Amino acid sequence: MSTTPQASQTPVVGIIMGSQSDLKVMQPAADILKGFNIPFEITIVSAHRTPHRMFEYAENARQRGLKVIIAGAGGAAHLPGMVAAITTLPVIGVPVKSSNSIDGWDSVLSILQMPTGVPVATVALNGAANAGLLAAQILSTANPTIAEALTQHRETQKNKVMQSVEELRQSNLGAAE
Amino acid sequence: MSTTPQASQTPVVGIIMGSQSDLKVMQPAADILKGFNIPFEITIVSAHRTPHRMFEYAENARQRGLKVIIAGAGGAAHLPGMVAAITTLPVIGVPVKSSNSIDGWDSVLSILQMPTGVPVATVALNGAANAGLLAAQILSTANPTIAEALTQHRETQKNKVMQSVEELRQSNLGAAE
Amino acid sequence: MSTTPQASQTPVVGIIMGSQSDLKVMQPAADILKGFNIPFEITIVSAHRTPHRMFEYAENARQRGLKVIIAGAGGAAHLPGMVAAITTLPVIGVPVKSSNSIDGWDSVLSILQMPTGVPVATVALNGAANAGLLAAQILSTANPTIAEALTQHRETQKNKVMQSVEELRQSNLGAAE
Amino acid sequence: MSTTPQASQTPVVGIIMGSQSDLKVMQPAADILKGFNIPFEITIVSAHRTPHRMFEYAENARQRGLKVIIAGAGGAAHLPGMVAAITTLPVIGVPVKSSNSIDGWDSVLSILQMPTGVPVATVALNGAANAGLLAAQILSTANPTIAEALTQHRETQKNKVMQSVEELRQSNLGAAE
Amino acid sequence: MSTTPQASQTPVVGIIMGSQSDLKVMQPAADILKGFNIPFEITIVSAHRTPHRMFEYAENARQRGLKVIIAGAGGAAHLPGMVAAITTLPVIGVPVKSSNSIDGWDSVLSILQMPTGVPVATVALNGAANAGLLAAQILSTANPTIAEALTQHRETQKNKVMQSVEELRQSNLGAAE
Amino acid sequence: MSTTPQASQTPVVGIIMGSQSDLKVMQPAADILKGFNIPFEITIVSAHRTPHRMFEYAENARQRGLKVIIAGAGGAAHLPGMVAAITTLPVIGVPVKSSNSIDGWDSVLSILQMPTGVPVATVALNGAANAGLLAAQILSTANPTIAEALTQHRETQKNKVMQSVEELRQSNLGAAE
Amino acid sequence: MSTTPQASQTPVVGIIMGSQSDLKVMQPAADILKGFNIPFEITIVSAHRTPHRMFEYAENARQRGLKVIIAGAGGAAHLPGMVAAITTLPVIGVPVKSSNSIDGWDSVLSILQMPTGVPVATVALNGAANAGLLAAQILSTANPTIAEALTQHRETQKNKVMQSVEELRQSNLGAAE
Amino acid sequence: MSTTPQASQTPVVGIIMGSQSDLKVMQPAADILKGFNIPFEITIVSAHRTPHRMFEYAENARQRGLKVIIAGAGGAAHLPGMVAAITTLPVIGVPVKSSNSIDGWDSVLSILQMPTGVPVATVALNGAANAGLLAAQILSTANPTIAEALTQHRETQKNKVMQSVEELRQSNLGAAE
Repeated sequence: MSTTPQASQTPVVGIIMGSQSDLKVMQPAADILKGFNIPFEITIVSAHRTPHRMFEYAENARQRGLKVIIAGAGGAAHLPGMVAAITTLPVIGVPVKSSNSIDGWDSVLSILQMPTGVPVATVALNGAANAGLLAAQILSTANPTIAEALTQHRETQKNKVMQSVEELRQSNLGAAE
Repeated sequence: MSTTPQASQTPVVGIIMGSQSDLKVMQPAADILKGFNIPFEITIVSAHRTPHRMFEYAENARQRGLKVIIAGAGGAAHLPGMVAAITTLPVIGVPVKSSNSIDGWDSVLSILQMPTGVPVATVALNGAANAGLLAAQILSTANPTIAEALTQHRETQKNKVMQSVEELRQSNLGAAE
Repeated sequence: MSTTPQASQTPVVGIIMGSQSDLKVMQPAADILKGFNIPFEITIVSAHRTPHRMFEYAENARQRGLKVIIAGAGGAAHLPGMVAAITTLPVIGVPVKSSNSIDGWDSVLSILQMPTGVPVATVALNGAANAGLLAAQILSTANPTIAEALTQHRETQKNKVMQSVEELRQSNLGAAE
Repeated sequence: MSTTPQASQTPVVGIIMGSQSDLKVMQPAADILKGFNIPFEITIVSAHRTPHRMFEYAENARQRGLKVIIAGAGGAAHLPGMVAAITTLPVIGVPVKSSNSIDGWDSVLSILQMPTGVPVATVALNGAANAGLLAAQILSTANPTIAEALTQHRETQKNKVMQSVEELRQSNLGAAE
Repeated sequence: MSTTPQASQTPVVGIIMGSQSDLKVMQPAADILKGFNIPFEITIVSAHRTPHRMFEYAENARQRGLKVIIAGAGGAAHLPGMVAAITTLPVIGVPVKSSNSIDGWDSVLSILQMPTGVPVATVALNGAANAGLLAAQILSTANPTIAEALTQHRETQKNKVMQSVEELRQSNLGAAE
Repeated sequence: MSTTPQASQTPVVGIIMGSQSDLKVMQPAADILKGFNIPFEITIVSAHRTPHRMFEYAENARQRGLKVIIAGAGGAAHLPGMVAAITTLPVIGVPVKSSNSIDGWDSVLSILQMPTGVPVATVALNGAANAGLLAAQILSTANPTIAEALTQHRETQKNKVMQSVEELRQSNLGAAE
Repeated sequence: MSTTPQASQTPVVGIIMGSQSDLKVMQPAADILKGFNIPFEITIVSAHRTPHRMFEYAENARQRGLKVIIAGAGGAAHLPGMVAAITTLPVIGVPVKSSNSIDGWDSVLSILQMPTGVPVATVALNGAANAGLLAAQILSTANPTIAEALTQHRETQKNKVMQSVEELRQSNLGAAE
Repeated sequence: MSTTPQASQTPVVGIIMGSQSDLKVMQPAADILKGFNIPFEITIVSAHRTPHRMFEYAENARQRGLKVIIAGAGGAAHLPGMVAAITTLPVIGVPVKSSNSIDGWDSVLSILQMPTGVPVATVALNGAANAGLLAAQILSTANPTIAEALTQHRETQKNKVMQSVEELRQSNLGAAE
């Protein structure tokens, strides 16, 4: 199974996507995981063009040490749901607004609307960064270091908002004098 | 592979569906094929609950003598597209408005919007009868008997319309005095 | 904080919903967790009618020992996203097709489309059973007993499908003569 | 609480938005209020990244002298509804077609479809100018000066239409000679 | 102008709707106003079948003492927007899911998506109770008694939730013992 | 060509529909025309099951004396547009929410969205009564009697509204006393 | 009433639109009428910013000699329906995909979904050319010259298609050799 | 009947489209067929501007030797369904997102939602390449050479994915060191 692991550690998160063209949408998931020092791998697994590879990837995922899979796909997006049907690991689905998508509705609905028995944890359209964060949150349930890092990440987000509050205040945009 | 073949002949059409609850929607496909004396089999193959069975079904379909597969599913309906990814037989997809569907939109989009390389011949929501007719049309390209039967079927349809025309005429619905 | 804990153990999953009328939709999440012997609590927390209670619930969740929160709501469904904004625990959102919903679209979109920084793991419309399963999957990343139970659960699902395959075969539905 | 007040008077309208990137969409609300000489403040309050700030803002709004709150947000837009849940002041919601929105549908539905008990006065997608006008209309119910100014504003609108009528007439676009 | 005023006081809120069949949807607006002791009138004004009546109603509204108009309509719902075009009073629009509506989308969009210059304060589909509350909130900006009553109303809502919390706790729904 | 003419006069309006099951939806068009004493015919013409009949109907319509055609159909509704492609008479399209329709959207879009060159005058979903009125309006452009009758019809509509206004007033629904 | 008449003849078609910005979308209606030598006028009438002008325009239309009104508007598009409520002339509605429209859905639905009693002959989104043709078809019911010109127009359309057929044939696009 | 045949062989697939502007969307269908050495013809047949040509094309298709028809059209797309109503050959419909389409929804629904009796094998929006592949799959049911070529085509697709897997691996995108 050819994948792209993070160098020195066994990956615990696998990021997969249906096509190379999804890479620019999915990259933020990798960036988030790097920021949290969570070892991950990233590769391309197409449900429709490499179905056997998909089966193999999903069947071996847990025993290879993965704890969460992030799967992105567009259009009639079957990758997240099919991987979730084969592994019992939590699978996070990222609907991609690809060129063959009708405004993203097909991607969203074909990932979200899974039948009872096979959940996919779906995030927003093109929401790969949130997929990375959700993976960190899942890992944080058994890892206090990640839990602490998540608290720090929230603090940073809050501070960025407060900085823009200050900038807006100084721009005096609303002043009528 | 457990399936339900039409008795005395090797089936040339396989009708599969994701769940027993889809049977009442998919039955008209079987009825049409019976009417055309086309040998078929009908069974349940769940992409999400029996993924290995799905793989096996799709991989062996052509060598077992099937020429067309009709696959019905609802919600995040992955069965038609995944089967189409594994076999090169023509696959007809029937979006089913199942209880877990958002007005059928999820079923339609997750069957119709397949990426380049793996087509699914999608028919209308709950359009199993048309799936059966489309299978007959496909077979008719190499089978003059079926072609002739299709012409007869059209004639019957036309006659039913003309009969309702006549009934409406006699009811004198439009008459003013 | 008044909640309804599972009797003898500290709950690790909190099931909350915006209104008592959501209970019949959310009950399957509790049923799944019971089946997996996962201690949980279930209560009503309204983002709009009890915002302070919501804040308190979300802020104390991790320190009370919760590892996953399942939040269901309908219409302009703010509960899952607001809880996710206050805690860093993974939050699973269940869009509920409530009486004040436009065919479920509002529930789905106001839970799914969270901004970068605050993910909600969204499941299908009315997909509470899958929310329970996803919670079990999340816990399984650090709990081999649950991981094993999930494998058993999948096997049971598969066997149910195979049973319906056999029933269909015996009904001889497809037979021609 | 850091906000950006209009210089010399206690603000009676608070304009808030979820992110600095919403500022260009929300600016027309401020412009309208300036035109009516209605003192206002404008700042950033994120429901998801600064939930405590949001609570504080909403809880103190009436006692600080605000009479109307205009809240804009995109995607899963919880700001208007959550503010409306905490204050009893009228809250005007502006759905913003932000970059993370599915054509604006998520913004519209997650602001409009509030449950019984907590109304949000929703205006059109990106309709910040109308939010400003609606705030003026609300204030006009107890302020004859603003009522008079609204009548003038309508007159100006009518005159602009009549001017374009005249321009079109002179362009003789329709003449057949 | 024939209307149905609340007995002994000059009405300050006018509730109008396009058709008698909208009455059952619009009634909760009246109920809310009664609960707040706000004098109101209620009548039928059809934009399409009684356009002159609509003009007259809107033109005279402010001078008759009305401060807020609540207008409900379904399908291509022009009543709220047209009334808002003629008066400068705040107009609250209630999209009604009438029998001639496509799942309510037409009602929502034809009320919400007003052009710049003529706002309509739109509430949820069939959200007449919230229209009544929003009217009370608008009036509360100059009426401390109504402001206080709104706070009480919120408290009542909260208590109802807490009561259902307690009932759920006692039902011991989640207990595993 | 078998049709159902109104007895003693050459029909000037032809009402056609794709299927007998559309009759209950289309009947109000006939009722309206009867009320205006406009001679009409009503029959079934299926674009898909009787394409030659459709061609013949459309090609001969003008020379047979028809001035307006009302065509109703559901699902992928091709009848109105195809008839409009063959005749140059004005064609009024009635989207029918038939059993094979996705909430009416398919019927509406496949009738409304005609390409440049072949207009169809589309009315509301199931709007057959309005199709009858529109036909009367078209005929009224050269027929003062019908024009006068239309004015009377409007007056009747207005009076019905005013009657319900009066009933509502007497029911004293809004009175608080 | 200020309008822009076609020079030497009494206009029989009135083209109106809600805003000068709609002119580029509505121009093809005028172009078509010029091509058919049908006298028309074109002007701006805003339902929301010039409601009295709209009333006056609609009330006087028939007596001024107009036979058909073409009305274009975007967003919450009330102009066509309100004009149709005041006059009994046939009104053709053109949904405009204006800058304040949600992908055109609001414009389409608020024009198309008129209640029983007040039809609007709706054409496709931005379909002004077809509105012009439909006006010509309506007039053709009493004017053989226009009827003949419509037949010629169809012939021209057909010839353009046949010319592109020939060009494609010569380009030999499909040749394999 | 003017068409553009592939040079030396009787065409077995007919590619038709409603307008020359659809050519750039439909070209991939031709490219696929060339790649499989399947003789085809390509031409323009407009349901609305050349209805007689459409009838003639569809009626003669089977006797001219065609086995499959691929029909593309946009907006109110009637070509695929009308051709399918006249011939009994399998018709593959390609919804085209043309300039007169509402985000493609009209094209999709007016092709997909055919009534019982007349199926159209619908592929994804702008999915002409898949239409070509589906035609090849249909022909493969009686042609082992095409069946073998389809298997090769799948292998090529798989290899392209594996090549991008390798490129991603070498780019070391995920490495943390």
